[in-house]
Amino acid sequence: MTKFVALFKKPEEVEEFDTYFVSEVVPLLKTLPGLQKLETTRIQGAPFGDSKFHLMAELYFADRHSMDLALASSEGKAIAKNLLRFASDVGFLFHGEIFD
Amino acid sequence: MTKFVALFKKPEEVEEFDTYFVSEVVPLLKTLPGLQKLETTRIQGAPFGDSKFHLMAELYFADRHSMDLALASSEGKAIAKNLLRFASDVGFLFHGEIFD
Repeated sequence: MTKFVALFKKPEEVEEFDTYFVSEVVPLLKTLPGLQKLETTRIQGAPFGDSKFHLMAELYFADRHSMDLALASSEGKAIAKNLLRFASDVGFLFHGEIFD
Repeated sequence: MTKFVALFKKPEEVEEFDTYFVSEVVPLLKTLPGLQKLETTRIQGAPFGDSKFHLMAELYFADRHSMDLALASSEGKAIAKNLLRFASDVGFLFHGEIFD
């Protein structure tokens, strides 16, 4: 199984970001063709104090090919375009293979 | 549900790190009291090229209290001590609440 991970930094406007994320981004993510699971995590801290991250979204696909198709789909492009609004809050984007 | 996330950077010695992680860290993680699920992901890339990360380990617990107990347990302390060997490869540690 392959997953795509988006790790968001603490935004300047937390409430605005959260409203945007829950009301706009999550419904869009759920339209992605081939998406098997979406897991979103509100980050609350780190072992030694605060975390610089605010939210993590993980998108699960059957395999790398399914993920590539989803990201290249019209739905995937709409999400990328939408996220540009909060581009400065995107900390890291990466993908990988679940092995255990 | 609460999860604890460890995000590792690409190590200098990938093979050595992987052997260490699979043969030593994963078995130790599985001894954590209250651990409900362990998910490990081998990071393979980013939307625009390479990712600076190599591996992500996610530890799932029923709630924050269970996570705190696990991290403070003798098993949790053994893991923290063990990880010091590869401390320079630990990119980020954080925890949060799964909300969707």
